[in-house]
Amino acid sequence: MAGIDLSRRLVAEALGTGLLVAAVVGSGIMAESLTGDTALALLANTIATGAILVVLISILGPISGAHFNPAVTLVFVLRKDLTAQDGAAYVLVQIIGGIAGTLAAHLMFALPVLQASEHVRSGGPQWFSEIVAAFGLVAVILSGIRFERTAVPWLVGLYITSAYWFTASTSFANPAVAIARAFTNTFSGIRPVDLPGFIVAQIIGAVLAFALMSWLLRIPSAGHIPIHPESSS
Amino acid sequence: MAGIDLSRRLVAEALGTGLLVAAVVGSGIMAESLTGDTALALLANTIATGAILVVLISILGPISGAHFNPAVTLVFVLRKDLTAQDGAAYVLVQIIGGIAGTLAAHLMFALPVLQASEHVRSGGPQWFSEIVAAFGLVAVILSGIRFERTAVPWLVGLYITSAYWFTASTSFANPAVAIARAFTNTFSGIRPVDLPGFIVAQIIGAVLAFALMSWLLRIPSAGHIPIHPESSS
Amino acid sequence: MAGIDLSRRLVAEALGTGLLVAAVVGSGIMAESLTGDTALALLANTIATGAILVVLISILGPISGAHFNPAVTLVFVLRKDLTAQDGAAYVLVQIIGGIAGTLAAHLMFALPVLQASEHVRSGGPQWFSEIVAAFGLVAVILSGIRFERTAVPWLVGLYITSAYWFTASTSFANPAVAIARAFTNTFSGIRPVDLPGFIVAQIIGAVLAFALMSWLLRIPSAGHIPIHPESSS
Amino acid sequence: MAGIDLSRRLVAEALGTGLLVAAVVGSGIMAESLTGDTALALLANTIATGAILVVLISILGPISGAHFNPAVTLVFVLRKDLTAQDGAAYVLVQIIGGIAGTLAAHLMFALPVLQASEHVRSGGPQWFSEIVAAFGLVAVILSGIRFERTAVPWLVGLYITSAYWFTASTSFANPAVAIARAFTNTFSGIRPVDLPGFIVAQIIGAVLAFALMSWLLRIPSAGHIPIHPESSS
Repeated sequence: MAGIDLSRRLVAEALGTGLLVAAVVGSGIMAESLTGDTALALLANTIATGAILVVLISILGPISGAHFNPAVTLVFVLRKDLTAQDGAAYVLVQIIGGIAGTLAAHLMFALPVLQASEHVRSGGPQWFSEIVAAFGLVAVILSGIRFERTAVPWLVGLYITSAYWFTASTSFANPAVAIARAFTNTFSGIRPVDLPGFIVAQIIGAVLAFALMSWLLRIPSAGHIPIHPESSS
Repeated sequence: MAGIDLSRRLVAEALGTGLLVAAVVGSGIMAESLTGDTALALLANTIATGAILVVLISILGPISGAHFNPAVTLVFVLRKDLTAQDGAAYVLVQIIGGIAGTLAAHLMFALPVLQASEHVRSGGPQWFSEIVAAFGLVAVILSGIRFERTAVPWLVGLYITSAYWFTASTSFANPAVAIARAFTNTFSGIRPVDLPGFIVAQIIGAVLAFALMSWLLRIPSAGHIPIHPESSS
Repeated sequence: MAGIDLSRRLVAEALGTGLLVAAVVGSGIMAESLTGDTALALLANTIATGAILVVLISILGPISGAHFNPAVTLVFVLRKDLTAQDGAAYVLVQIIGGIAGTLAAHLMFALPVLQASEHVRSGGPQWFSEIVAAFGLVAVILSGIRFERTAVPWLVGLYITSAYWFTASTSFANPAVAIARAFTNTFSGIRPVDLPGFIVAQIIGAVLAFALMSWLLRIPSAGHIPIHPESSS
Repeated sequence: MAGIDLSRRLVAEALGTGLLVAAVVGSGIMAESLTGDTALALLANTIATGAILVVLISILGPISGAHFNPAVTLVFVLRKDLTAQDGAAYVLVQIIGGIAGTLAAHLMFALPVLQASEHVRSGGPQWFSEIVAAFGLVAVILSGIRFERTAVPWLVGLYITSAYWFTASTSFANPAVAIARAFTNTFSGIRPVDLPGFIVAQIIGAVLAFALMSWLLRIPSAGHIPIHPESSS
């Protein structure tokens, strides 16, 4: 954003991605330690993730745009809202911040700080899930900033709340978060070897959404939000 | 909506209904696979459905009106907000999109793509439940667009969140979604043979709400929302 | 509200109280039938109730004020926002609507339509709970309409969501809803003989809140909402 | 706030902290009595706490600023928004109100009014958790009042909802609430001897957030909220 120096924006991206990952990983650890019912654990994980997304996008969006996600940053570079160079810096600090978030969660829960996940997440249905998850996420962001910018934090939080359940992969939808989750052998982890499949799928989903929404949103009058069409074509 | 071509509106209706059904069916599959407690499974199903409704109506409402529901489209045709011809096109793509949503959920969860539900949902109490469910949904939409248009996505999402629990049918309230759910033999399915009873009940509920609200909302000054009456009759 | 005839306002109060009670009673029946874990049943009951409150107050508030509660109507009569005569009519239709809501829930769940609860809810701690519950509810409403009128539906829904859990009585806080719940021998019922204690406690709580908030809210400049004091006394 | 006398502000702080603690302690008692699943109990505790925070900050914020928390009051004194003398009075009534909230919860649930917790909460990971919890809380408040003041009640409620799960300490993040929770030997209690460690950690977290956010928020144009940067540095 004009007038905000890159250093503050990068701190915001790193801080936001770090807190997001700490919430995802930490709530998974807490939930798994308190119940034997996996659905209940995922529900707690979902609520913690959805809630912190609303918060972090609200408080850091005005500084950096609150991407916290290389796939989202890529889309804003494609839109020319961000230079490729700044985008690369965003991605770098997102990854660093995300890994720091995993380590912080381990410290809070008195677990070994350095871990590698053994949680298998692979195969066509998982990859298709990630394509759907990232497609939906980018569609929500692009339509949200077009029609009702102040609602974007809520829409993203609610979308991920839902997508945790309707995708078989629990909707990572974020390469930086996926990398950070490879560093924890707890509830929310993913094997390092499964990362490439997830990341490729996420990028495919994001680019597909960018293409579709570029066409779908090429309409007049974005200023108001009617609930139903007032005339036929 | 004036100025938005029918093709974009139909894509929005198909996409929205598809994602809605994918969320309903997919979260049911996920929940059922993770817990043996049916109430917990329904709670996860509820949260995933309510959240995605808020999101989809927010991001696609400005394009097509975000009906995703033939009973709602019927009401807007009765209100003359939509021509009968456009309404028929809406209903067609809602049904197609909804079925695609079921198939997508099956693909994500590595299940046979084509299924037929064996879940019995029939009888007077179930039909009465669907009348109540659709009545409430249409009442919420009509009052919402009259008094506080920007809140409509939230009101619909919260209404369905509640109605999943207070109706014995878990509140389908939507013929296109009901048809799509006949194609899955998982948590959220309905036997094809039980569809007619549900659809008739949904249309009855929608038309009753249209009639009552047309009278109830025929009041002056819709511009502001007082919380209590300031004078007696 | 000036210009809205009493007949529409009374229909709104009856309809709203009826749907509220149908949600409370119906979701209790659904939850109890699906799980043996009482906390999970109460959680589902809570979410269904909180969500429908946001919806009903939003869609019917502009018509009748959306009291749905004789204790709230009493406070508005004390504030002279409503005549005693209109207030009496409100209370009457709230009670009738509430009972109809219980019967509708029984019909939807294929239960005997007429029942009497055997659920014991009595004694000092229960009554103290209802005083606290109604005190909080009225405080929320009076402060809400003073500072941020459009948020009132949300504040009431969230307050009840919380109070279901932090009061030992699960926060009935509403004489009309209490009477209606005496007509169901399911999860959310209350013995008819326990009604007087609950209703007296609710009225005490409501009047105490009216007294305290009348003093607390007698401050200048209600138009904006600062988050912290800018000067000392 | 200019024009609001200290007596009203102190009553608001005491009332708000009291209701907050009653919600935290009361919902913990209720949940623990209804289920043997600790994750489910914490989920109910979380929802009750998050919901009441949104409500209390909304209805009392315009009167006292709705701190309910000595660590937050300290930050506003550091910002010179509040005199040290007024801040001390705030802290005193927060502590008194909080303890009264615990006693009220015991009365409602028919438990011995005076108790001392035996719940051990100590050690480095717990203290680090409280540093993170208070850091996040103060960061949310400071950024929230800078960018989107009316959203602050929601952001705080959602932040605590998430932090209950992603910190190993369940995110007390509040010295007055911690003191009050030492007076209950139920779900949400903390041993009196563990208070100093928690309180020191909370103050450290709050001051760290104050320092970081003072730098991060020193940016131009606070009036609008762009979602992404429009130019590079």
